[in-house]
Amino acid sequence: MISKSILKYIQSLHHKKFRDEHDVFIAEGPKVVRDILASRQFVCKTICGVDSFFNEYEELISPVEQKDRLILSEIELEKISLLQTPNKVLGIFYKRQPEKVILKNSLNLLLDDIRDPGNMGTIIRIADWFAVKNIICSEDCVDQYNPKVVQASMGSIARANIIYTDLKKFIDDNKEINVFAASLDGKSLYTFDKIKEGLILIGNESKGIKSELLKSATAQITIPRFGAAESLNAAVATGIILSYLLKDV
Amino acid sequence: MISKSILKYIQSLHHKKFRDEHDVFIAEGPKVVRDILASRQFVCKTICGVDSFFNEYEELISPVEQKDRLILSEIELEKISLLQTPNKVLGIFYKRQPEKVILKNSLNLLLDDIRDPGNMGTIIRIADWFAVKNIICSEDCVDQYNPKVVQASMGSIARANIIYTDLKKFIDDNKEINVFAASLDGKSLYTFDKIKEGLILIGNESKGIKSELLKSATAQITIPRFGAAESLNAAVATGIILSYLLKDV
Repeated sequence: MISKSILKYIQSLHHKKFRDEHDVFIAEGPKVVRDILASRQFVCKTICGVDSFFNEYEELISPVEQKDRLILSEIELEKISLLQTPNKVLGIFYKRQPEKVILKNSLNLLLDDIRDPGNMGTIIRIADWFAVKNIICSEDCVDQYNPKVVQASMGSIARANIIYTDLKKFIDDNKEINVFAASLDGKSLYTFDKIKEGLILIGNESKGIKSELLKSATAQITIPRFGAAESLNAAVATGIILSYLLKDV
Repeated sequence: MISKSILKYIQSLHHKKFRDEHDVFIAEGPKVVRDILASRQFVCKTICGVDSFFNEYEELISPVEQKDRLILSEIELEKISLLQTPNKVLGIFYKRQPEKVILKNSLNLLLDDIRDPGNMGTIIRIADWFAVKNIICSEDCVDQYNPKVVQASMGSIARANIIYTDLKKFIDDNKEINVFAASLDGKSLYTFDKIKEGLILIGNESKGIKSELLKSATAQITIPRFGAAESLNAAVATGIILSYLLKDV
């Protein structure tokens, strides 16, 4: 049975203020919860799930104490779920401290003011596909623990190292690392060779990259346009650029 | 003033059944409405907007008869808007008949069972960026005139030629055109040269491409994975593949 106080607690975690206060976040669905459990990067606070979830993932759940497992009916799950179609399980996990960022010999992402949770989650998933470990976000980016970000990452949140910081200072502190800014006025992506080390800077969905950051870039990369759309979605642009710069030919 | 009957009519257009019945769709925000008006591809039924929209886009709106222009207050617009932040204008447009599809000497898209309106809209925007004219959708794809598709296309809906048909039959009827299926078990994208003619087949977000369609493909293309994510978002995959296959080097 789900008590009123737990219901209220879970609902409060939709808001960053309460996630910060309690130092936890929520994740839903077998795929996402499974990836977070399997990563062993996050301590599980509570698992609220239907019977079949607990049976199917017995081994993965074994580190979670019995008292922290809540078996719910589908109807109870519906009450706490944020999803249109509630999906077997909702987990509450403690946030973790990011690891130390190492930029040498790898390609990493800088995100400037990415606001849309769907975009942020999709970028985290893309980074995971291309083995981009570090995602360095400006402080005005949407919170990585926003439930919509967690869902859109499709479990990749479990494997990303995401930090929030002053990007200008971060770039200045890492002057030896090249910064490649995705912009509409740069050199064609197709003129770039494979890049083994650097930071790819992606800007806000409608305003692009802040000018003070753009000035710090080593080069500007543009995805050639053949048609009439004014821009590409920030996550799509990230995928196209990473795929091209990491190509193994 | 917005009457109750207009309010009800606009709300009904969120549903495909009523869009089909009235043969119209809705679009919101200056960018999207402007692109649709400018394309001259869609007859405008009604423009509901705030004063400043009408002043700014006087010339574009000139073909719309006075009786079909409704000047609203911000509060009235809020009542009819689907957007979280209503944005100056909501237009009601008549749907149009798609143009005849010509596949010779061009790259086009086949979409199998794309369900998410955000993905569909983003794919339409990507196609517009890369000058891919024709988007041929399976009958189970989300409706191109779904308001969320229209919004996510960011106006590119005005320039796309989208048809819904039986994909298997379409492929069989166009046997001379190569079909390249995006899959997880194909040849590396990076081994493909620039492709000037063909159909890129993109599958459902979670189930991939139907096996009967996959069998009809000339080749299967895989975006090389370096990390751990199980898949890429369908729109992101479309962007990466189109960008690589159309590269002008």
